[in-house]
Amino acid sequence: MNMVVMFCVRACSGLVGMRMAPPLRFLHSFPGMTVSQIDEEVAKLLELKAQLGGDDGKHQFVLKTAKGTRDYNPKQMAIREKVFNTIISCFKRHGAETIDTPVFELKETLTGKYGEDSKLIYDLKDQGGELLSLRYDLTVPFARYLAMNKITNIKRYHIAKVYRRDNPAMTRGRYREFYQCDFDIAGQYDAMIPDAECLKIVHEILSELDLGEFRIKVNDRRILDGMFAVCGVPNDKFRTICSTVDKLDKMSWEDVKKEMVNEKGLSEEAADQIGEYVSMQGGKDLAERLLQDEKMSRSKQACAGLSDIQLLFSYLHLFQVTDKVVFDLSLARGLDYYTGIIYEAVLTQAGVAPVATEAQNGPPGEENVSVGSVAGGGRYDGLVGMFDPKGKKVPCVGVSIGIERIFSIMEQKAEASSQKVRTTEVQVMVVSAQKNLLEERLKLVTELWNADIKAEVMYKKNPKLLSQLQHCEESGIPLVAILGEQELKDGVVKLRVVASREEVDISRAELIAEIRRRTTA
Amino acid sequence: MNMVVMFCVRACSGLVGMRMAPPLRFLHSFPGMTVSQIDEEVAKLLELKAQLGGDDGKHQFVLKTAKGTRDYNPKQMAIREKVFNTIISCFKRHGAETIDTPVFELKETLTGKYGEDSKLIYDLKDQGGELLSLRYDLTVPFARYLAMNKITNIKRYHIAKVYRRDNPAMTRGRYREFYQCDFDIAGQYDAMIPDAECLKIVHEILSELDLGEFRIKVNDRRILDGMFAVCGVPNDKFRTICSTVDKLDKMSWEDVKKEMVNEKGLSEEAADQIGEYVSMQGGKDLAERLLQDEKMSRSKQACAGLSDIQLLFSYLHLFQVTDKVVFDLSLARGLDYYTGIIYEAVLTQAGVAPVATEAQNGPPGEENVSVGSVAGGGRYDGLVGMFDPKGKKVPCVGVSIGIERIFSIMEQKAEASSQKVRTTEVQVMVVSAQKNLLEERLKLVTELWNADIKAEVMYKKNPKLLSQLQHCEESGIPLVAILGEQELKDGVVKLRVVASREEVDISRAELIAEIRRRTTA
Repeated sequence: MNMVVMFCVRACSGLVGMRMAPPLRFLHSFPGMTVSQIDEEVAKLLELKAQLGGDDGKHQFVLKTAKGTRDYNPKQMAIREKVFNTIISCFKRHGAETIDTPVFELKETLTGKYGEDSKLIYDLKDQGGELLSLRYDLTVPFARYLAMNKITNIKRYHIAKVYRRDNPAMTRGRYREFYQCDFDIAGQYDAMIPDAECLKIVHEILSELDLGEFRIKVNDRRILDGMFAVCGVPNDKFRTICSTVDKLDKMSWEDVKKEMVNEKGLSEEAADQIGEYVSMQGGKDLAERLLQDEKMSRSKQACAGLSDIQLLFSYLHLFQVTDKVVFDLSLARGLDYYTGIIYEAVLTQAGVAPVATEAQNGPPGEENVSVGSVAGGGRYDGLVGMFDPKGKKVPCVGVSIGIERIFSIMEQKAEASSQKVRTTEVQVMVVSAQKNLLEERLKLVTELWNADIKAEVMYKKNPKLLSQLQHCEESGIPLVAILGEQELKDGVVKLRVVASREEVDISRAELIAEIRRRTTA
Repeated sequence: MNMVVMFCVRACSGLVGMRMAPPLRFLHSFPGMTVSQIDEEVAKLLELKAQLGGDDGKHQFVLKTAKGTRDYNPKQMAIREKVFNTIISCFKRHGAETIDTPVFELKETLTGKYGEDSKLIYDLKDQGGELLSLRYDLTVPFARYLAMNKITNIKRYHIAKVYRRDNPAMTRGRYREFYQCDFDIAGQYDAMIPDAECLKIVHEILSELDLGEFRIKVNDRRILDGMFAVCGVPNDKFRTICSTVDKLDKMSWEDVKKEMVNEKGLSEEAADQIGEYVSMQGGKDLAERLLQDEKMSRSKQACAGLSDIQLLFSYLHLFQVTDKVVFDLSLARGLDYYTGIIYEAVLTQAGVAPVATEAQNGPPGEENVSVGSVAGGGRYDGLVGMFDPKGKKVPCVGVSIGIERIFSIMEQKAEASSQKVRTTEVQVMVVSAQKNLLEERLKLVTELWNADIKAEVMYKKNPKLLSQLQHCEESGIPLVAILGEQELKDGVVKLRVVASREEVDISRAELIAEIRRRTTA
């Protein structure tokens, strides 16, 4: 009952000094508003209730992370670091700079960029001041950054977390907070050269990460639209039919056709014509054939796309990556803002990664991601213009690496492999064989630290030798520097190799050089 | 008027199916609630207004980042990367693992941890489901992580952004989104050993970053409390007097005393006694003297703190860092959760950094930060217990590096220095001397990429030689690989050293080795 009453307080409290007016009329003029507001009020009351400590006044605190999020433990972080290093060094090899943007943007900045998906955006509570939302991807902030700083030329990568309030029901274990890993080239350049480099980068990264066999599907939005036109799809149905085609990697053609005809009201014959085209896969040759195709060649758009595909393949040949690239007319991709070439890399060794993390790998704003998809992107020449006061366009092409998916594959590999992941880089542990040698241990570890050697001591006055050695075994520390009465008398340190249990006396003067010698491999 | 009316709608809408009750009584039982609610309502109406596009229906979109946040451009990122590398390698040298936690936590997780400052926490909008807030520091999430995973032993670092809705009026240019860079040791260990290592780490990092002279002030919460007790401060005034003492680095003793006496109602003589103590600075010797101090020695707490200070200094001596460490009784620190040793590192070369970024360097939850403060921390043995269902404690000590402050100092240095910051690591640019050599350029750059050499080409079919060379000058690319008809005929590449303008013909077979030779320095 408290709730109701408190509610009345808050409801009425706001009225102070405000004139009352007949609600109904305005309920009418703001349809749908009431319901959501009731939800809002109720939620607020529950919040108050929580603060008050629940019904009985004693509130049970739940020890957990927010729904859809997770902590990364040291082992996961070690794997994450390894993957990032591979990807970043590839981006740097291609001369990319990096930028960072705030985790939240003005709500307006994100509005009208994601269509359907906008409902998944996290908003910040209005605590006065600006209305803010958590970034949904890295592409829109990038476009905002370019327009805001009037940058017309940049090759940048950006690795950061993005946020999507996904409906748990539809999500197959996808996270609400996850990394994106984007590489984009902005600028007015000659056709297909930067586009080809993006594919070269995907090829390099997937090869270096050694995730098994992969294929990079390529298509062009202009080819899709042209194809829809010549197959008799009404203009206003292009996008919706496009997103149905996009499901071909999860649904059979029969089901896709059903959806087109029954749900989207497309004609049988139009659907069948589309069916013929989307079954086509090939290379440069296919593009040539389609340029001759009596129907397809009727569309200017399609022809423009097809000759760009030809040009793209000629550059991919020079980049030595044609072995993995397929021109695939069934590739559609969900996102609206693509204007030209689109691509998606898929792992072709089935079951290499769990379906569970599937959905995180979509490039910015992607709604559906094919099973096994680990990278995707395309050309978006219009997005920056949406932010420029004068609508000045900056052509962009980019790729997003499906990093979360790659993490989970790497984690599986680590699980499977015998050798365990190290979470520290400690080279040597300074231990004592007898009691009362803390001071000597601290002196020695200081020498090592000052010589930039990664070293540890136990934070105990008199730790047992065994427990010190056990720590080395557990955390994979390769060397142990043992101090004892005798060693101190002789001015030496007993250096023990954990793996072989071999022990040698090394003079203090030689120790650092010896450790370096044994740990630089 | 619309606003008012709409307000009525939303106010009343929530009442559907709820019984009305006399507001006043509850206004009474929830004092202060009304005002904040009116604010809330007004804010909501402004939101609606914004969505409706302002008064004239046409809404001007503002191209900016959220208030108190900023983008990092490539130059800033290059500096940031350099600083992080120094700090992280120090943490790794000391055997730290790293973890990551979500950017938002359950609101409950943060409630009751920051006292006064809780008002600065960013809450997420209630969109159904859990109530969430952006993390305010990295310490509380760390404590939550330990309790949740029942971890009793860990040495970890965590570098991530935190969020504080600071009141712009009081902030001197501080950001609302900024990095924290924390190193903490959790576990039941022998006294002062991990505490001393934290100070060793601060010493190493500040020395390596070469920020100029610095001093590390040390004190202990038990000494402060003991001192307050023996000076006749009532127990319930400890915290508030403590935060007044904390202002000594910004205010004169006279003003601090005034605040104690006039605002906090402390007696003249109590204040004067405190004044004597807080003027004391020294080392191990001072701790010894105070242990003999007739008044101070009456407090068990103070004595416990003082002998730990003695022990700490003996370890700091072995770590070779006593040169920079001062036992300073005026060091208080704002944060509530400290239970033992506390410390703060300050730069002593005045004007080395702008006051503007001052406030970002506070360790977790710090309210005031002394001018020049670049690191701080202390022991907090109670925090993890707040999260454990059985209240099981995990002793912790940690340090937070004032990374934002350090960035701005580094940026100033970069500005000042003649040599400009490189934002890419490109070693060689592949250029053409004549037209129609795009294919040859792409072939060559592919060779280089495949050999893991960082290389670039211009995305133009026929770029001017001059503009290609200019790009090298601007972005500091050291080498240029020039292709021309002649070079192709001779099977060589003209390798140009940008700095010296020297040019030599290198055979294709030798090129990669030659580039490596010239770029590995």
